[in-house]
Amino acid sequence: MRYAVLGTGIVGRTIATRLSSLGHEVVIGTRDPAATLARTEPDAMGTPPFATWHMAHAAVEPRSFTEAAAFGERVVNTTAGAATLDALKAAGSVHLAGKVLIDIANPLDPSRGMPPVLDPVNTDSLAEQIQRAFPDAHVVKTLNTMNCRIMVEPSRVAGAHNVFVSGENKGAKQQVTEMLVSFGWPESSVIDLGGIESARGAEMLLPIWLRLYGALGHTDFNFHIQGAH
Amino acid sequence: MRYAVLGTGIVGRTIATRLSSLGHEVVIGTRDPAATLARTEPDAMGTPPFATWHMAHAAVEPRSFTEAAAFGERVVNTTAGAATLDALKAAGSVHLAGKVLIDIANPLDPSRGMPPVLDPVNTDSLAEQIQRAFPDAHVVKTLNTMNCRIMVEPSRVAGAHNVFVSGENKGAKQQVTEMLVSFGWPESSVIDLGGIESARGAEMLLPIWLRLYGALGHTDFNFHIQGAH
Repeated sequence: MRYAVLGTGIVGRTIATRLSSLGHEVVIGTRDPAATLARTEPDAMGTPPFATWHMAHAAVEPRSFTEAAAFGERVVNTTAGAATLDALKAAGSVHLAGKVLIDIANPLDPSRGMPPVLDPVNTDSLAEQIQRAFPDAHVVKTLNTMNCRIMVEPSRVAGAHNVFVSGENKGAKQQVTEMLVSFGWPESSVIDLGGIESARGAEMLLPIWLRLYGALGHTDFNFHIQGAH
Repeated sequence: MRYAVLGTGIVGRTIATRLSSLGHEVVIGTRDPAATLARTEPDAMGTPPFATWHMAHAAVEPRSFTEAAAFGERVVNTTAGAATLDALKAAGSVHLAGKVLIDIANPLDPSRGMPPVLDPVNTDSLAEQIQRAFPDAHVVKTLNTMNCRIMVEPSRVAGAHNVFVSGENKGAKQQVTEMLVSFGWPESSVIDLGGIESARGAEMLLPIWLRLYGALGHTDFNFHIQGAH
């Protein structure tokens, strides 16, 4: 399968690495590949520059959002929530139409201080905004409720825990579930919350996730819905 | 211990019953006790009228909000979120000052259709509104993230699962933790999220709780933070 992972941050790199290691053809999308490769400083979170990561993962080529989306049979959005709609516009609706668009982003707004709040929230969600803006894409919200290392290696957290999927298209959710199973998620750990509107619930987990991170002092935890099965 | 449980709905009745069965002196607060007792119809959710419940729980007397709060050494808020501040105003700040005020309510706003949205949300929470309005009370948010039968009988859900506490006063959180332990919660299942601001996280679990209820078709589930300990 050909995957376009949009976003060169730690989440995008982690997903791209995992998909590549599973034998998929993966490109990673960014606004300006040359500028992304030219950066030499870690970002504000201490993440090493993209070029450092790319040296160890040469199979994953950086491409413009448009080229990446044109290449991918599936598209994974890992851009910052505030930049997502612009990134997808740059990708181009023609290159998203008919494809499964896996949205892992969270609409975090750090402009009002820490911890960040959500925007949109409550009466809307980023996933719904994406689906409205790109009605011909099959948007599936998933994986946004945990640290990215757990996304691709769920066994980091001992015991049963869950990952959620939200989306309008049952076939798309099934394809995403198969991708999650290939990452190591037991099929029984995938909870289908419902239509894309239900992504509000998954996105609104972030505020307690951030406070649990503060309370526990680490990110190797995940939500488990006890009694779900 | 003398408890005032404010709110005569299913949550208030369940908490009052449990506290009473544990040997506490419990009154249940309502705007107009005579009117509450006079109702003969089930409510919109099918909950039987208060008088029916009261026949089987005669030890728990209905009192006005003011009388109930004056009686209680601890106060438990189980009123509807939209009615909470008015109910506590009726209770009277003088009857809340210096007391542990356990807030179980959720600020659900059903006026925009189902499932209900939250108000306040994201940049504020009901628990913070209460703490600001009654600065001399020791507000502790807890138990709002599950069905009320699980609140008082956690073993309804098999396996480990969690209950959260948020509040400014460590002693008050410790007292609430002891109450939770008396309900059957293992002490290790109680997660202290932090100050009262962290109640935003607990309240924002409601949107996914409502969608999980829809997806699972029952309410006998609860959140477990896998990897927390």
